Amino acid sequence: MTKDFFQLFTVSQVRKILEDFPQLGSEEIELSSALGRTLSWDVTAPEDLPAFARSTMDGYAVRARDVFGASETEPSLLRVTGEVRMGQVPGYAALGPGEAVRIWTGGILPEGADAVVMVEYTQELDGRLIEVYRAAAPGENVILRGQDCRRGEPCLSAGTRLRPQELGILAGLGIMKLRVVRKPRVAVVSTGDEVVPEYEAPPSGKIRDINSTTLDALVRISGGEPMRLGIVHDSYDAICGVCKRAMDQGADVVMVSGGSSVGSRDFTLKVFEKVTGAPALVHGVAVRPGKPTIISRREGSAFFGLPGHVASCMVVYYLFVHYLLNIYQGLPPDAGLSFGQARCGQVFPSVAGREDYVRVRMEAPSIGSLPDAFPIYGKSGLISTLVKADALLKIPRDLEGYHQGEEAEVLILT
Amino acid sequence: MTKDFFQLFTVSQVRKILEDFPQLGSEEIELSSALGRTLSWDVTAPEDLPAFARSTMDGYAVRARDVFGASETEPSLLRVTGEVRMGQVPGYAALGPGEAVRIWTGGILPEGADAVVMVEYTQELDGRLIEVYRAAAPGENVILRGQDCRRGEPCLSAGTRLRPQELGILAGLGIMKLRVVRKPRVAVVSTGDEVVPEYEAPPSGKIRDINSTTLDALVRISGGEPMRLGIVHDSYDAICGVCKRAMDQGADVVMVSGGSSVGSRDFTLKVFEKVTGAPALVHGVAVRPGKPTIISRREGSAFFGLPGHVASCMVVYYLFVHYLLNIYQGLPPDAGLSFGQARCGQVFPSVAGREDYVRVRMEAPSIGSLPDAFPIYGKSGLISTLVKADALLKIPRDLEGYHQGEEAEVLILT
Repeated sequence: MTKDFFQLFTVSQVRKILEDFPQLGSEEIELSSALGRTLSWDVTAPEDLPAFARSTMDGYAVRARDVFGASETEPSLLRVTGEVRMGQVPGYAALGPGEAVRIWTGGILPEGADAVVMVEYTQELDGRLIEVYRAAAPGENVILRGQDCRRGEPCLSAGTRLRPQELGILAGLGIMKLRVVRKPRVAVVSTGDEVVPEYEAPPSGKIRDINSTTLDALVRISGGEPMRLGIVHDSYDAICGVCKRAMDQGADVVMVSGGSSVGSRDFTLKVFEKVTGAPALVHGVAVRPGKPTIISRREGSAFFGLPGHVASCMVVYYLFVHYLLNIYQGLPPDAGLSFGQARCGQVFPSVAGREDYVRVRMEAPSIGSLPDAFPIYGKSGLISTLVKADALLKIPRDLEGYHQGEEAEVLILT
Repeated sequence: MTKDFFQLFTVSQVRKILEDFPQLGSEEIELSSALGRTLSWDVTAPEDLPAFARSTMDGYAVRARDVFGASETEPSLLRVTGEVRMGQVPGYAALGPGEAVRIWTGGILPEGADAVVMVEYTQELDGRLIEVYRAAAPGENVILRGQDCRRGEPCLSAGTRLRPQELGILAGLGIMKLRVVRKPRVAVVSTGDEVVPEYEAPPSGKIRDINSTTLDALVRISGGEPMRLGIVHDSYDAICGVCKRAMDQGADVVMVSGGSSVGSRDFTLKVFEKVTGAPALVHGVAVRPGKPTIISRREGSAFFGLPGHVASCMVVYYLFVHYLLNIYQGLPPDAGLSFGQARCGQVFPSVAGREDYVRVRMEAPSIGSLPDAFPIYGKSGLISTLVKADALLKIPRDLEGYHQGEEAEVLILT
């Protein structure tokens, strides 16, 4: 008979097991293709950024002490000794007392100057003299040399996920090659004697493969590199063969979906035991959908037996495979997932002892500011239920469901 | 003198202007490269999905009426007339009264059967007879023919963003080529006589280009195709030349960043007027940072003059360029942005009449469930302030800031 939910692994027990997997090794890539990748070394600034003090405004470079207390009624009078041309080193001596230099945004601050007065607060009297109507503090409208980062000091640390701004600072420092955590390689395998590739016309009694396409896309979203290994028959030898092929090709994860019948599940379990040389780490999880999940490990690589039903397969992917791919990449395990809160638009029954993930559609708030969530009815083998779904509503293990109007956590299916 | 904030465009006025831009045309692509793209036609199912009724369990295909009222104490007795082999059409006559057929998950339901009883609720008596201990409703453990989609009926509508599950249903239907909205082509131009490409060692007085790298990455995140056109001098002719080059190359958006000095801003404005043959739609926005933004239009294409300061440039990108790229792609204008709420960890001063976007770091909640936000001090020309930032905290136009402890909206910098 079926195992009781209390004998199965809980979601958090499975995640604890996944947290033992190691971060992947690193590879060198170009700055231009590093978006979203994770740094695998601590970056020290090879030079000051910026390499010189710069003006952030159009105006006059001054010595702050010379305009101390300046106002509309008591302007300071300064002698203009030159102009900083953009991108050029000032070709004149350091600023002396009572002197000013015309400067533009981005211009190099002349020696001796420590502030810039905006042009709006000045008045030219003739070609050589200006009145300044406002005081400037030292450093005002100036970016100091090394203010972004100082040469030899830490700039970005290993484990940083590279957003546009991190790429920007690396560009500013001229760092064109980076060491990043390599992408996890994820083998995608569908099983089932009734399944044909999606690009073939299925003969009577057969259906097109849906899971390979869905899982391939999910792996891309998680930052992994999918390796589609096609469809294999529901047999020990066929599943064993494809797992070995995946290992030969350097897969970090092998996902075998389908084989949700008792017989095929047995094959998958036995193959995983054979190729890993150890019993499965996980066999059966107290989650719905997704109960028949199998997870095995061989050195740093993981083997997942995923349910064949599309909705179950996707829930298990989000809960566990995505989680592991984040760990492999040195990211927070929930990175890339979008959680929110919703109000239960009706009752959501469940059973204590298992975690439920109910496909829901969300409606604009009727009360308060939370969206209303309504269940999408339909079997977990129907891909259309996922197409209609905006999110998965989580019912925790210790609850027997939610009443209408209660607040629940949702995982947005972006 | 500087314009008063009340004379400038508000953020929502600018967005209204952007909403007038048309969706881009379409292109045909392969299913395998369609993740994240937007469908540009209504998909009608070319066939039933699934093409036949299937079992979702291992068990026995039955006529529901034959097991009506079955229980442990009063089981129904059925005669097993065969077995459905996976992926094969049953090679026997339709199920008659009192008959059952052994079936596996995914197996084709035999003619006459309308439900499947799970194997757990049956007992084999000898090779030919079973006892059934539980009733089954018609349709139980069965996916009906066409239950995902029916031939000739709408399946996905134009404007749908393709998630893994939408790709899955298209795979299930064998639709291998799709018409999707084409990607916006976005020209990225930096200006400034003091700027050199990031891969060159800058001579004294010059700095490396940061904005091109940052904007290139932002465009990718927004689903656009960046076209890096390099760095041009701060001159009317140079900016005019690069804008024409961008148009020749089919740019939907031309972003000219830098030129934040008064003189260059004037060049950019004049060039946009020249190449679009019309006054700018927007010149100055009541937002901080980002005030000197310029937006022009020529037919369906947009020209953005972005501030040169990196932080200002990024805020303007998120507020307006990303917004327009969503409109071009037929997506909700805020798609892809991650908004949240935070508690102000200290006072956030502002000025009524303009919208503020303050770079903040977020800390794990001290009170309640919201994270605490603290401002990151530093000029908007410092890229390091963005590296330290987890989010941008929005202070609406009608507020003079937030008190410590108040709740505010944040745009997460993912």
